[in-house]
Amino acid sequence: MARLVVMYGTPTDKTAFDKYYFEKHIPLAKTIPGLRKYEVNRGPISTPTGPSRIHLIATLEFDSAAALQAAFGSAEGRAAAADVPNFATGGVEMFMFDNREV
Amino acid sequence: MARLVVMYGTPTDKTAFDKYYFEKHIPLAKTIPGLRKYEVNRGPISTPTGPSRIHLIATLEFDSAAALQAAFGSAEGRAAAADVPNFATGGVEMFMFDNREV
Repeated sequence: MARLVVMYGTPTDKTAFDKYYFEKHIPLAKTIPGLRKYEVNRGPISTPTGPSRIHLIATLEFDSAAALQAAFGSAEGRAAAADVPNFATGGVEMFMFDNREV
Repeated sequence: MARLVVMYGTPTDKTAFDKYYFEKHIPLAKTIPGLRKYEVNRGPISTPTGPSRIHLIATLEFDSAAALQAAFGSAEGRAAAADVPNFATGGVEMFMFDNREV
């Protein structure tokens, strides 16, 4: 499986972020072709030393690295990426990788 | 499910890092009680703008936030955490959260 992990820093307005993310961004991102699974954290993210600088972690799964690349290049993928600046007021980092169980 | 995501920055010596991680750290971490699934990236991690500052992402799954907390507090969890400075020459960040499919 290939995985896209999207990490959103703490936004200026958490309530507005969550409303936009769950009502607008998720429905948009779920149209991306080849998307097999979409997960987000429920509740706060913590670290061994306390609260996290990250507000939301989204994990999107695809069958392969090729499927993930194709998803990014699709019209739906480009629309979802273009939507991110509309709500990611705390910054965002994206990581793409092939994943395996050990 | 509760998830622990561990992100290792690019180490000073990737070959030495990988050897230690796969030969020593994984076997140690797999003894942690309550660990249900342990995944790592296969191959490089990329970002939309090029290579990633992150060398390795480990995803560890537990049944619940309580199980994850208990795992961290166990002797095996403490031993695995204490092993991290032995190889994480590029820095490390850990994120713990309850996870759900959307």
